[in-house]
Amino acid sequence: MQYLNISAKDNPRIKRVIKLQKSGHYRREEGFFVLEGLRTVDDAADNGILIEELYFTNDIIEKHPSYIKKFAQNSNFCAIISETVAKNISDTTSTQGVFAVAQFPKNKAQIESGKKYIALENLQDPSNLGAVARTAEALGIDAIIISGNSCDPFSPKSIRASMGTLLRVPLIFADNMAEFIGKLDMPTFACVVQSDAEKLSDMDFSGGAVCVIGNEANGLTDETVEKCRKRITIPMKGKAESLNAAAAAAIVMWEMVK
Amino acid sequence: MQYLNISAKDNPRIKRVIKLQKSGHYRREEGFFVLEGLRTVDDAADNGILIEELYFTNDIIEKHPSYIKKFAQNSNFCAIISETVAKNISDTTSTQGVFAVAQFPKNKAQIESGKKYIALENLQDPSNLGAVARTAEALGIDAIIISGNSCDPFSPKSIRASMGTLLRVPLIFADNMAEFIGKLDMPTFACVVQSDAEKLSDMDFSGGAVCVIGNEANGLTDETVEKCRKRITIPMKGKAESLNAAAAAAIVMWEMVK
Repeated sequence: MQYLNISAKDNPRIKRVIKLQKSGHYRREEGFFVLEGLRTVDDAADNGILIEELYFTNDIIEKHPSYIKKFAQNSNFCAIISETVAKNISDTTSTQGVFAVAQFPKNKAQIESGKKYIALENLQDPSNLGAVARTAEALGIDAIIISGNSCDPFSPKSIRASMGTLLRVPLIFADNMAEFIGKLDMPTFACVVQSDAEKLSDMDFSGGAVCVIGNEANGLTDETVEKCRKRITIPMKGKAESLNAAAAAAIVMWEMVK
Repeated sequence: MQYLNISAKDNPRIKRVIKLQKSGHYRREEGFFVLEGLRTVDDAADNGILIEELYFTNDIIEKHPSYIKKFAQNSNFCAIISETVAKNISDTTSTQGVFAVAQFPKNKAQIESGKKYIALENLQDPSNLGAVARTAEALGIDAIIISGNSCDPFSPKSIRASMGTLLRVPLIFADNMAEFIGKLDMPTFACVVQSDAEKLSDMDFSGGAVCVIGNEANGLTDETVEKCRKRITIPMKGKAESLNAAAAAAIVMWEMVK
């Protein structure tokens, strides 16, 4: 198969790819994002994510011809890019040299009573979001609810940290978490660092639940805590002031499903 | 109080500080490491960590004179550094402008039967190590056992991710994890991703335990798994292949102490 060659950094397609890598606002506006790496692109293809454009270096087509052939068959536009262009597009320090422009995954979900959800308000670290997604999928949480002011689940860092899980696990977007929680007709739990809150281990999540985890530095907003039916906490010892958000979420999700 | 001024990047003291920031080998050789930021230096001073040298910018002494005075009284050498030198020393993108060269904390511990330990074999990501330390302290785990090939708990990234917890939580260093585990006379548990392993939730940790978590990509070595009395697992659903190491450790430690 013959492919177009792109080696100019100011090629308009390449400029768009770089913008999609860097700007969450642009990603949301377009409804497209960039996947990087053989494994991630393969995962996406297997999960029915629509690949619009595919870019790869000569190096990777030599190393993995069958993968590139498979990806190319499923995309509307393909081009070979130079190593320099690959480095410009890449969000990592050592790129494999394969990128796909893909449509946002259709893993949007709806709230159903009796099911179990982890909700994230203003979570800022893509590594934490990625780790929460991995834990949620592994433990069988039904969906992740993400507030509008949280970090972007379709940023390169989030997707990498999630090992591709964010392309599969059902997501629900809540512009304003307090308003969203206020409208739900099911048990809702605010996870807080307060010694007078109820203990996580005393809770019964068997009838379905939404547990809300807050921002890394500031926890949940007062408004969201107020809208939840209960305040729950992981009792802490020593001089510890809080847990890492992804670690707290892991413990909460473990209790929700066991 | 009058302080020495340092603005030359090739000042030998500054060169040593930069080397201590960058090289784990040099830190172990010297037994010293670098603390960065007001909060971290203050935490260290409060925890009895010996501060050998203190470096700060004019900017931070103007903003926080009482802190700097307190730190200076406890250190053997103080100097005002230029903003450029501060940027050269710093491991972060925006530095507060205060650094301490400190002796390794004396938080070394010994194994005692009946107590509870989390062990990390070949853990590579300082963010994971930091998160494990935060969870261990918060849940009251007695000490963290760290294998020789794990990332350095006294690297700037580890300390930052741990929010200073690594300066407080007792640490035990095990050159070779398999050998270390083999010599213990107490229940030892290898945390694995194997469906034929025993379920974490079926275990009884009340008599004390060592639970071992492995490398982010490859898990535990066969040698270490063999030396442990039991193989335990967190049952997983969906297409998930594993949990983030810090999330898995959080769930395991939660079960150990409840």
